[in-house]
Amino acid sequence: MTTQVTNPITQEDIQVGEIANGLPLTIPVYRIKGDGTGPKVYIQANMHGAEVQGNAVIYQLLEQLKHMHLTADITLVPYANPIGCNQKSGEFTLGRFDPITGTNWNRMYQDNSHLVKEFANKHLESDIETIKNEFRQTLISEVDKVLDGPAYAITTGKRIALNLQKLAHQADIVLDLHTGPISSKHLYCPEYAKPSASYFDIPNVLMIPNDFDGAMDEANFCPWWNLTEAFATLGKELPIAVEAFTVELGSQELIDLKEAKHDANSILSYLTYKEAFTDSQYQPKTMQRYVCELKDYIAFYAPMGGMVEYLAPLGSHIKSGEPIANILRMERYLSEQPLQSICLDQDAITILHFASASVNQGTELYKFFTNYELLT
Amino acid sequence: MTTQVTNPITQEDIQVGEIANGLPLTIPVYRIKGDGTGPKVYIQANMHGAEVQGNAVIYQLLEQLKHMHLTADITLVPYANPIGCNQKSGEFTLGRFDPITGTNWNRMYQDNSHLVKEFANKHLESDIETIKNEFRQTLISEVDKVLDGPAYAITTGKRIALNLQKLAHQADIVLDLHTGPISSKHLYCPEYAKPSASYFDIPNVLMIPNDFDGAMDEANFCPWWNLTEAFATLGKELPIAVEAFTVELGSQELIDLKEAKHDANSILSYLTYKEAFTDSQYQPKTMQRYVCELKDYIAFYAPMGGMVEYLAPLGSHIKSGEPIANILRMERYLSEQPLQSICLDQDAITILHFASASVNQGTELYKFFTNYELLT
Amino acid sequence: MTTQVTNPITQEDIQVGEIANGLPLTIPVYRIKGDGTGPKVYIQANMHGAEVQGNAVIYQLLEQLKHMHLTADITLVPYANPIGCNQKSGEFTLGRFDPITGTNWNRMYQDNSHLVKEFANKHLESDIETIKNEFRQTLISEVDKVLDGPAYAITTGKRIALNLQKLAHQADIVLDLHTGPISSKHLYCPEYAKPSASYFDIPNVLMIPNDFDGAMDEANFCPWWNLTEAFATLGKELPIAVEAFTVELGSQELIDLKEAKHDANSILSYLTYKEAFTDSQYQPKTMQRYVCELKDYIAFYAPMGGMVEYLAPLGSHIKSGEPIANILRMERYLSEQPLQSICLDQDAITILHFASASVNQGTELYKFFTNYELLT
Amino acid sequence: MTTQVTNPITQEDIQVGEIANGLPLTIPVYRIKGDGTGPKVYIQANMHGAEVQGNAVIYQLLEQLKHMHLTADITLVPYANPIGCNQKSGEFTLGRFDPITGTNWNRMYQDNSHLVKEFANKHLESDIETIKNEFRQTLISEVDKVLDGPAYAITTGKRIALNLQKLAHQADIVLDLHTGPISSKHLYCPEYAKPSASYFDIPNVLMIPNDFDGAMDEANFCPWWNLTEAFATLGKELPIAVEAFTVELGSQELIDLKEAKHDANSILSYLTYKEAFTDSQYQPKTMQRYVCELKDYIAFYAPMGGMVEYLAPLGSHIKSGEPIANILRMERYLSEQPLQSICLDQDAITILHFASASVNQGTELYKFFTNYELLT
Repeated sequence: MTTQVTNPITQEDIQVGEIANGLPLTIPVYRIKGDGTGPKVYIQANMHGAEVQGNAVIYQLLEQLKHMHLTADITLVPYANPIGCNQKSGEFTLGRFDPITGTNWNRMYQDNSHLVKEFANKHLESDIETIKNEFRQTLISEVDKVLDGPAYAITTGKRIALNLQKLAHQADIVLDLHTGPISSKHLYCPEYAKPSASYFDIPNVLMIPNDFDGAMDEANFCPWWNLTEAFATLGKELPIAVEAFTVELGSQELIDLKEAKHDANSILSYLTYKEAFTDSQYQPKTMQRYVCELKDYIAFYAPMGGMVEYLAPLGSHIKSGEPIANILRMERYLSEQPLQSICLDQDAITILHFASASVNQGTELYKFFTNYELLT
Repeated sequence: MTTQVTNPITQEDIQVGEIANGLPLTIPVYRIKGDGTGPKVYIQANMHGAEVQGNAVIYQLLEQLKHMHLTADITLVPYANPIGCNQKSGEFTLGRFDPITGTNWNRMYQDNSHLVKEFANKHLESDIETIKNEFRQTLISEVDKVLDGPAYAITTGKRIALNLQKLAHQADIVLDLHTGPISSKHLYCPEYAKPSASYFDIPNVLMIPNDFDGAMDEANFCPWWNLTEAFATLGKELPIAVEAFTVELGSQELIDLKEAKHDANSILSYLTYKEAFTDSQYQPKTMQRYVCELKDYIAFYAPMGGMVEYLAPLGSHIKSGEPIANILRMERYLSEQPLQSICLDQDAITILHFASASVNQGTELYKFFTNYELLT
Repeated sequence: MTTQVTNPITQEDIQVGEIANGLPLTIPVYRIKGDGTGPKVYIQANMHGAEVQGNAVIYQLLEQLKHMHLTADITLVPYANPIGCNQKSGEFTLGRFDPITGTNWNRMYQDNSHLVKEFANKHLESDIETIKNEFRQTLISEVDKVLDGPAYAITTGKRIALNLQKLAHQADIVLDLHTGPISSKHLYCPEYAKPSASYFDIPNVLMIPNDFDGAMDEANFCPWWNLTEAFATLGKELPIAVEAFTVELGSQELIDLKEAKHDANSILSYLTYKEAFTDSQYQPKTMQRYVCELKDYIAFYAPMGGMVEYLAPLGSHIKSGEPIANILRMERYLSEQPLQSICLDQDAITILHFASASVNQGTELYKFFTNYELLT
Repeated sequence: MTTQVTNPITQEDIQVGEIANGLPLTIPVYRIKGDGTGPKVYIQANMHGAEVQGNAVIYQLLEQLKHMHLTADITLVPYANPIGCNQKSGEFTLGRFDPITGTNWNRMYQDNSHLVKEFANKHLESDIETIKNEFRQTLISEVDKVLDGPAYAITTGKRIALNLQKLAHQADIVLDLHTGPISSKHLYCPEYAKPSASYFDIPNVLMIPNDFDGAMDEANFCPWWNLTEAFATLGKELPIAVEAFTVELGSQELIDLKEAKHDANSILSYLTYKEAFTDSQYQPKTMQRYVCELKDYIAFYAPMGGMVEYLAPLGSHIKSGEPIANILRMERYLSEQPLQSICLDQDAITILHFASASVNQGTELYKFFTNYELLT
């Protein structure tokens, strides 16, 4: 007979800014503690305003976690971006970028990899535990240095990002929950963490190289990856201590609690593999998983302006030459073929498409995996 | 053996404004002529920028009409609003209202009903044909009076609307093709035209009273309705000469060519009933159709802020007390029930819901038919 | 020797809604109490998000009021609209209308004039004090009826507006502080309150008839005006008990503390005239004041698209035929005169102009007083 | 006695894209030819939608140029961005970034510097004229390669940018006319072109290093700068053949024809120095000019949210510790000092400030020159 535990959950509201009428911007941080023997886990959602489903996944995670035997300390942050979340323009949430500057909210994290070289030199003789603790502290201090520096030097988005990054740097495992516009599930996975990818119930996996481009996952895995490489150069072998993923849950502007439960289970399966629990039964589903390198993840821009009928089903494997869209151009009904059929010139997996049916020439119509292979 | 006709189609681009860089705003007007014995028909689409499916319906109509035996002259106008159509904000089209003023593009037409009284008094002895022709000319002249008046007296939206209204006033039948946000098909039908409603393949029909609120359909049926009433007061009986409908095709930001063909067929079925063709086979589908008076078409505003899971299927008949939505409020996970179930307190048909999953308190969540009955 | 008083000021934050992440929308309400012998005064600012100067005027008012001998109870509400105030689109505040629906935030108040007839009949024998108190209570109850009714029946904007209207209905004097886009100072004054207009330091005054169009001032003066008229019909004379004004402070997107002090002094001069203080020295400035009826307050829409050089100084008296703007159309440099000079065909006072230099044909370029006369 | 020439001007409309209703996006290109002995000049304006004053400067330039004795061929492009120019959100033009993606329109040009190394190796023995002609052709071909490549590989903004870049690559002198939000005049000048800076009537000059960040000026000067450096490495001395500047004309959303004439004269003075004319009298004004390195051009972000009174006059030299802004926070009137005075902690020249009076914490409030010195 299993006794049901009920783990205490705490909430802390951290301030990440102030809006024009002087009111604070806050983010709710939920924490649930394990027995201290497992990894530290950080999960956030909704950095982009319209990508709300991660909040539902965090809901479903909390509903499970409060009754599980945890080794891990888990921090969960829904509504990570209180500006993006509440920025409407017409009926939709305009939360992909700062409405004032156009800067993508998920490109404002800070790369602390420049600290690696000096750190590695200094800790050549240290043991792994010391290295992990000290480097973690170094990363956090570097973020604090900016947050505690002059207020006039930090943009709105940077302040939000750094407050989140500081929380994330405390963890061994970082999951940033996003969605595409109209999208199938896919996973951004650093190349070194490929073995972990098959524990998520996500069929399509992007392999991310060690390049920093401003995103949360990179802000967490790049320094640790670089640290390992720096030690390697110095002849010291060290496993990469942190895993960080961007989990793309599907489409934006959608709350689906049942699907959220599936995705919570997928995350619990991964966390089970990472030994976050003492007796978890969560296992990954059997499915064919595909990997694609980031350089082969291609955007397909609208070759002409018009009204789009999207034909390639999300997640589908399409063949070169198959129609992926019809573009209707009624203004030219008499002067040319008003319905243009659009194809891709190579085989691909359809990952996502644009959220709207009307596009300018050059609007990103689709994103595809190309040159993909089975994840093994 | 039937010989296939190929009717000539003409295109005229009419100018309806100028944008800031001085370039003209134009609208393509397609015309296809019948043998002159049938009604004059006017069909427009995409007055609201995101409501693009009507363009696809016009495409499918033209594809049929060019091979049919027409009695009617038919004018078709896709892309009726060249500003709304091209106004993006984030990924979506922000085309429901003028982005400068907030005015709904479909509330800028002009009510010419004030002309009715004098006209009726003057034409007490006229025959029906004369009345129709003269009143039509009167309406057109009234629009021209404004369009030809001082340019500084006309707003951007009014100029677009009046150019369209002038085209529409020339017709006996006016169809304004719209969509809801996320929506099932429904029809705005003036009360007097109820018998026509069952010729459309549209299950849910709104009965519209003789009140002008700025929309295209009203701008066309109100004056004729009022004219008939004015003559009735004077003891002269006159059928209402014009029918005008707003046809709601489904959801915005969607092009679906197959569905567009169904909707084209539905319109052809109605036009067959109105004797627009000499040998058309289009017949309405058998389905249960429901009617609801406009006053019973209720908006349901979000009773709290949060993330919404929509539960009531579009077009479904829901029972009082059944859940229609879950509202997730993760900021209050510990302090109250984070998942709130929302119900309606009466039976209803779900017509449409909001396009986004995140809502402020007071955002229009759903629109419902209540007190509806079978259309007979 | 004058002793300086320091009146206590209280702050109450009232909740007027909730945003998508579940957080409350609140408005700060400041109250300062007099000796109970004077009028009740309500002053709000910033209902439109970009019209921020009213907040500075409230600041300057509070700075004065805390040291004055008050007979009046005064309620001051800065940041009246917590959504509009924080809605950015690009660098500017997009706060004139609800970004979701397009509805002007200052057209969502409620007309309670329908209560007048029954009330007048019932209170034919009542004395003035009773009438004032009871009618005030009736107005407040009518607002409460909606606010306490089903949450699903109230839009976001209505909830904000009604919470403010409820505060305003408690007052004898209501001042709604606005600004134009690029604007000179002007005053919306109900016709019956014309004698009060010369106590403000505002040169241009609009005379407003007894028509309700959704604005705060109208929501307050219309019912009382109608009440007086209803009693008049019944043969009972009653002065109109409430005065309500929209005070247009100048241009939006501007904080000017010195100018705010002038405007605070102007309001204090009016309140001195209304006996809100026991020993105030505030007097109106000597200036020529002009009045114009609302029907003669004309909008001048751009007669063509282009880039605009505004030539008519704000507040200036321009003559028919004088150039008011140049419109540059560089796209037509070779094909026509690229610089078009625009005139008005009558004498006018320039009240405001559009905030941007680039306009579509039909954009509101200017608003003018015409057929104005000296306020005497 | 001078005879007045009248140079022929030609207009070509080049297509740079298509919008959703299928209509082409075009840009007007004006050309005026000299006697072939002078430099080739390219001037464009209004790449950012709200920065309209450059169109007026091009108007004033054309008005002068058509009567001057030209050695130079001059190409002038107003309305360089037909999307940005017409993108309204509320009253203002939202044209700094693509409204769909958030990408700054002036960060989409292409760096062709990677061609330099191979080119230099190949042309070690070539003469200067050959090098100039061939490298120019190489740059143009590189742009054409993308424009003529698959349409699905080019974003909306890239297509606009590359079409402009192709025109600019044909010139020896490139001027990109911009404005700041609320701004004084300033000049982005590549370090090597410092001697040219004093021929513009612009008091504040930024020295730009050889780093490509996506802007028009960089896309033109970087490859030529790199070419000279590559030749230097190979022991061949070559002057940098092209000069490119971003000219910041003042504030956005403003047309001022008189000021535009001053700025046209300033450009004509620079072009006189560059021998674009045979008998021009245009001379720079006498003024103190200051230079600042790009790294010392600092942004000052709002240290708190609130309503801002800007105190530092544009172009003024402010001292460390002097107040530059008041931030009003009325929500905290009772709980803290509601009016916060903000200072800079070093001496600076005020170049520009934010366009709106209401700011979030972290909004860019000001940009300042620091560590500036006299241009000599």
